[in-house]
Amino acid sequence: MITTKNAIIRLSRYKSALARLRNLGFVKVFSDNLADAVGVTAAQVRKDFSMFAITGHRRGGYQTDALIEKLNSLLGKDSLQKVIVVGCGNIGSALMKYKSFEQEGIKIAAGFDTSGSFVKKSSEVPILSMDELQSFVSKHKIHIGVIAVPEAVAQAVLDQMVAAGIKGVLNFAPIRLRAPENIVINNVNLVLELESVIYFTRAVEKNPQALVEGG
Amino acid sequence: MITTKNAIIRLSRYKSALARLRNLGFVKVFSDNLADAVGVTAAQVRKDFSMFAITGHRRGGYQTDALIEKLNSLLGKDSLQKVIVVGCGNIGSALMKYKSFEQEGIKIAAGFDTSGSFVKKSSEVPILSMDELQSFVSKHKIHIGVIAVPEAVAQAVLDQMVAAGIKGVLNFAPIRLRAPENIVINNVNLVLELESVIYFTRAVEKNPQALVEGG
Repeated sequence: MITTKNAIIRLSRYKSALARLRNLGFVKVFSDNLADAVGVTAAQVRKDFSMFAITGHRRGGYQTDALIEKLNSLLGKDSLQKVIVVGCGNIGSALMKYKSFEQEGIKIAAGFDTSGSFVKKSSEVPILSMDELQSFVSKHKIHIGVIAVPEAVAQAVLDQMVAAGIKGVLNFAPIRLRAPENIVINNVNLVLELESVIYFTRAVEKNPQALVEGG
Repeated sequence: MITTKNAIIRLSRYKSALARLRNLGFVKVFSDNLADAVGVTAAQVRKDFSMFAITGHRRGGYQTDALIEKLNSLLGKDSLQKVIVVGCGNIGSALMKYKSFEQEGIKIAAGFDTSGSFVKKSSEVPILSMDELQSFVSKHKIHIGVIAVPEAVAQAVLDQMVAAGIKGVLNFAPIRLRAPENIVINNVNLVLELESVIYFTRAVEKNPQALVEGG
C-alpha cells in the first residue's frame, strides 16, 4: 500500500475532530460530519477510510469510540511515543513545553544541547549534553527526534542522531538534510511558511482570484 | 495566473539557495545548480521560472544577483515586512525571538496577549495588550499576523485581527479557522507534523518502500 503524507495528516485531523465530537456526546459520526469538521469532501473521508480498511455503514455511520481506537492504532498512538529534542534554544525550548504533544500521546523525553549553559538534568524534561545522546536514546528505545539547531550544525546533529538509532526526524533547521534512505525526515521551515502568507496576501490584494490550495 | 503555495515555497527555497551560492562566489547559476540545492529537477526549476516570467540562457545560466533581486521582488521582499504575533506563550515568544525571520527581511513589530502578566512595552519587541491591537496595526500599516494562542480562543482572536485590518495569517492553533474569502490563512500544526514522522517511521520499519512524498 502506498500512503502519502497528506493522507496521514488527514487521518490525524479526523482523529482530533472525533475527539471533539465525542466530547459533544456523539456516539456515531457520519462521513459528512468529519468532512465538515476537517474541511474536505465526504467522498475524501470515505476514500481515506477505505484505503486503510476502515469500514462503516453508509446510513448508520461509524461508531465514534471504535473509530478513534482504530485511528490511534493506525497512527501508532496506541502507546505513548517518546521523542527527543536536539537544540534547546527558543524553538526547541518552546517545543519541550508544548502541551499539545502530551495531549496527543507524545512525550518529550529529553532535550539535548551542545551548550553547557542549557544543560539542566533536574528540570521536568531534562536537558542533557550531546555526549549523552547515544546512551539515552538506546536506553529508552527512542526512534523519533526533533532538530531545532542552527542551520550550520544541523547536518552534523542529524548524523549523530542517526548513529544513535534515531529513525524519524522533524527538522526545523532551514536546510535540506542528507540521510540514509530508511530515515524519515519531515521539514518544517517557519520562514517559508510565513513568506508564503506574505506572498499570497499581496497576490490577493492585487487579484482576489489568486488564492489556490495545494499544487 | 494561478499560483500554488508549493510553487511559492519553491521560489523561497531557490532564493535561499542563491544567497548561499552567492556567498560561495557564484556570479552565474544554472537550473541544475538550483535543482541540486533545493532537491527538485532542473526541469521543475525552469518551469517555475518560466511561470513567473524569469528568463535565463540554457547555456549561460542566470545572473545570480539579478535573479535574487527578481525573486525578492516576486516574494514581496523588496521592502521590510512587518508582522505581529498574537499569543506570547511558549511558541509565540519563540517566534518573536526567532532570528531567521529578520535575516529574511521579516520584522516582528509587536506581540499581543490577553494576559496582563505578559505585557512588556519596553522589551526589544514590545508585548502589548489586545486592546491596543487595532490602533497598532492601523498606525504601522501591518497586514500580516501570526496566531499562537490556544485552540479555544483562536477563532475569536482571528476575528479581532481581521477587524483590525490583518489580511494574512500564519496559524499555529490546531483548529480550522473560518474567515472571509479574501483573508489568507496558512496553518502549521506541529502535532500533525510530528505525528506524520511517527507514522512514517513505523511504516518504513515494516516496509522500506512505504516512503512517498506529497499526494
